[in-house]
Amino acid sequence: MQCVQFAFKKFPELIIAIGSAQFSHTLHNPFTAGERITMIRLALDEAKISAAKYFLIPVRDLRIHDLWVPNLVSQTPRFEVVLSNEPVTSRLFKEAGFRVEPIPFYDREKYSSTEIRERVVNGKSWEDLVPPSVASYIKNIFGDERLRELALSDQPKHHERQPRF
Amino acid sequence: MQCVQFAFKKFPELIIAIGSAQFSHTLHNPFTAGERITMIRLALDEAKISAAKYFLIPVRDLRIHDLWVPNLVSQTPRFEVVLSNEPVTSRLFKEAGFRVEPIPFYDREKYSSTEIRERVVNGKSWEDLVPPSVASYIKNIFGDERLRELALSDQPKHHERQPRF
Amino acid sequence: MQCVQFAFKKFPELIIAIGSAQFSHTLHNPFTAGERITMIRLALDEAKISAAKYFLIPVRDLRIHDLWVPNLVSQTPRFEVVLSNEPVTSRLFKEAGFRVEPIPFYDREKYSSTEIRERVVNGKSWEDLVPPSVASYIKNIFGDERLRELALSDQPKHHERQPRF
Amino acid sequence: MQCVQFAFKKFPELIIAIGSAQFSHTLHNPFTAGERITMIRLALDEAKISAAKYFLIPVRDLRIHDLWVPNLVSQTPRFEVVLSNEPVTSRLFKEAGFRVEPIPFYDREKYSSTEIRERVVNGKSWEDLVPPSVASYIKNIFGDERLRELALSDQPKHHERQPRF
Amino acid sequence: MQCVQFAFKKFPELIIAIGSAQFSHTLHNPFTAGERITMIRLALDEAKISAAKYFLIPVRDLRIHDLWVPNLVSQTPRFEVVLSNEPVTSRLFKEAGFRVEPIPFYDREKYSSTEIRERVVNGKSWEDLVPPSVASYIKNIFGDERLRELALSDQPKHHERQPRF
Amino acid sequence: MQCVQFAFKKFPELIIAIGSAQFSHTLHNPFTAGERITMIRLALDEAKISAAKYFLIPVRDLRIHDLWVPNLVSQTPRFEVVLSNEPVTSRLFKEAGFRVEPIPFYDREKYSSTEIRERVVNGKSWEDLVPPSVASYIKNIFGDERLRELALSDQPKHHERQPRF
Repeated sequence: MQCVQFAFKKFPELIIAIGSAQFSHTLHNPFTAGERITMIRLALDEAKISAAKYFLIPVRDLRIHDLWVPNLVSQTPRFEVVLSNEPVTSRLFKEAGFRVEPIPFYDREKYSSTEIRERVVNGKSWEDLVPPSVASYIKNIFGDERLRELALSDQPKHHERQPRF
Repeated sequence: MQCVQFAFKKFPELIIAIGSAQFSHTLHNPFTAGERITMIRLALDEAKISAAKYFLIPVRDLRIHDLWVPNLVSQTPRFEVVLSNEPVTSRLFKEAGFRVEPIPFYDREKYSSTEIRERVVNGKSWEDLVPPSVASYIKNIFGDERLRELALSDQPKHHERQPRF
Repeated sequence: MQCVQFAFKKFPELIIAIGSAQFSHTLHNPFTAGERITMIRLALDEAKISAAKYFLIPVRDLRIHDLWVPNLVSQTPRFEVVLSNEPVTSRLFKEAGFRVEPIPFYDREKYSSTEIRERVVNGKSWEDLVPPSVASYIKNIFGDERLRELALSDQPKHHERQPRF
Repeated sequence: MQCVQFAFKKFPELIIAIGSAQFSHTLHNPFTAGERITMIRLALDEAKISAAKYFLIPVRDLRIHDLWVPNLVSQTPRFEVVLSNEPVTSRLFKEAGFRVEPIPFYDREKYSSTEIRERVVNGKSWEDLVPPSVASYIKNIFGDERLRELALSDQPKHHERQPRF
Repeated sequence: MQCVQFAFKKFPELIIAIGSAQFSHTLHNPFTAGERITMIRLALDEAKISAAKYFLIPVRDLRIHDLWVPNLVSQTPRFEVVLSNEPVTSRLFKEAGFRVEPIPFYDREKYSSTEIRERVVNGKSWEDLVPPSVASYIKNIFGDERLRELALSDQPKHHERQPRF
Repeated sequence: MQCVQFAFKKFPELIIAIGSAQFSHTLHNPFTAGERITMIRLALDEAKISAAKYFLIPVRDLRIHDLWVPNLVSQTPRFEVVLSNEPVTSRLFKEAGFRVEPIPFYDREKYSSTEIRERVVNGKSWEDLVPPSVASYIKNIFGDERLRELALSDQPKHHERQPRF
């Protein structure tokens, strides 16, 4: 939440792109784009950030890097600055002529998705690591149960093994 | 605008799905999903409809009908009712178990995209057919010029002819 | 049915490939591959043709003709002869080194899918044009109702118009 | 074979879906869908299970989990119960409303594909681990030779390395 | 040929992009990208244009216009000017910041692909409309025969009808 | 370079296929197909090999092995012999009926792309491992800088993690 509030203080309007929008039900992306959009809206409402100040837009991960930035640009309103800490993303945007700025981290270890995922999978308490409305939502859609079942799957090493009989 | 206001009176929250999101620069879909999202937000702001009351989400046209509804569902928050007048869409949603309701038309001939397109292409005045902020935006991005150039292209009859040298 | 019986008399075992397997809910292909497989099995059972004498395999229409035959070959057991009347298919198989033979037509106008489709859409009686078990099945899944609703849709001329809102 | 006979005793008719149907010539999936269909038919014929009791249908691995079940459903006749031990598959089917039941294992280590693969690659005897007609078939298509050559390839860790020059 | 020579006089080096590279065996694109590359090389050799002065590169037709120019750019060496008469192509390149120039036509009706196609299909003499080496090549690969067989096919109106059984 | 000269001595004309043509900006494939085509042309010009003796053609990595050879064949002029050391590629070509021959290695450790990559990433001198014109080109497009930035990214283990926010 603090990363987001940092961003909103700096810029009047944000485009929050939900990446890898076509993927779900994997350990790394357990939730659909629709579910992630719902959770972000809940969190921002809770933080009293007006919906007028942002767009929530799902973007597919093309995996073809020359098309990655043009694809994202086609799905979003015009923007000038990109906020990202991820190196490949940053490089692609820079080569495309955009200004890229980092987002400062707040307690990266505690609030990381890896930490949250680990707690859910191991049955430890995780609800305090996300905003209350998001914790409720995740439980309503049995998201914690889903994450635990996905963790049972033998993780495939290569692409054609998921899912299989 | 009136269709939208009809919808907002009937339901507390709407998901406005921008279909065929991967297509642009054709006579039928001259604008990118990002440009369409911008225009809809401008129009709804002008009509003083709070952004808190809707989601604006681009959805690709899969053209594989058995996957069309599941794909849209994956990209959107949960919904119960579908507002649509289009028969194929309606049929697919009904078979998937959703309730489908029609949207009443207001002056369908005057405000149709076909009418607007025809006027732009033929150099007639069109600005009064869309909200003022949208007319401004279209002119800022030279959208009318784009539409006229696209209309010059010999329309391909079959799929592999667009675009070609 | 007679086409099929002609084929079974001539060859000990057949592979019946259900083409365009990824498409459904269009006027030309109103049924899913799964529904078409069910109907063919019903018809062949009714004609007392043992399931041991054939394979029923859905094959996607790749629309990339250099890959079309290799794709079909990858999805099917080995075969030597192709039975087809369709020129593009025949040409592709011949260029790939297969022997292609035509299937004689029996009352082509009466039993064509175009004729059946036309009767269903216009509310005329159509059940006598298909085997009884198939007519029952189609009615059970409201297939005739589906066809009539699909016919209401304004037919899109170019690809990005289906389906739309 | 015993897993299959368990299934046939429990249910009158089965749909045997051949997953990852678009992949072949990898260590994990050395055979094409067509080759796998052939082998399963040979094995079931040998076990005297009538072809009238099942459908053999190849299904592509979409890797987009929200579309995975709808895709499989579109390619198959209607079914009510899913037999699967694999967690991701099971989770997806459950969320889609299907009843999912496990298949008991018989000598899982001895008859696993991993064990068979390992023996073929290392030149040990493997024929006794598969039905005789299947062993013959594999040798006829030089399947064992193929597996050994595929094992020579340096296994790519990430997706864009297969195959390459 | 004259169009090409016009281009070579004006610019020291050209990139000749073979568009719709994934399509073949249709009336509009009867030849594979590889066959078209072969024919262009034959024609340019015959016109004594050194291969050092150009690149012959196949480019797929993405049909997603926002990705069309980035895709072509990713497959080709850097270029500054685009030679094209086609409006959609020209518009896309202009919006992407490239300079676009037209190519003057020489006897457009006589040497058009439509004219050549029409003559081949109707059994009239066509060899004088293409360079001799190209006419030889086309006959060697039975390209004229292929074109006549493709013309027999009932032309599908919508996308999922090609090819079908 | 010596591998290439070996090949040119043995055969009058070569097709140099640039594989994985759709990928770029990854550690394994840092350059676009267009950039790779440019570099190979520069290197061959420097080695005084006439462009008339080869074709430089980008080919996508389909990852569907039954379609891999047909796809490459569709994009290239006719060929009879394949020069490759890579086992999967070799196996696929052999099964498709082509003659496959190995390319002898020259100082494989010193001139391998792994070695070059390692040196660039670690700031060691690398320019002597590639032809001078290629070293210049790479520096002009800041290719070394790109490689170093790509190396900073935490490498994703599974497919949907690249790139992400």
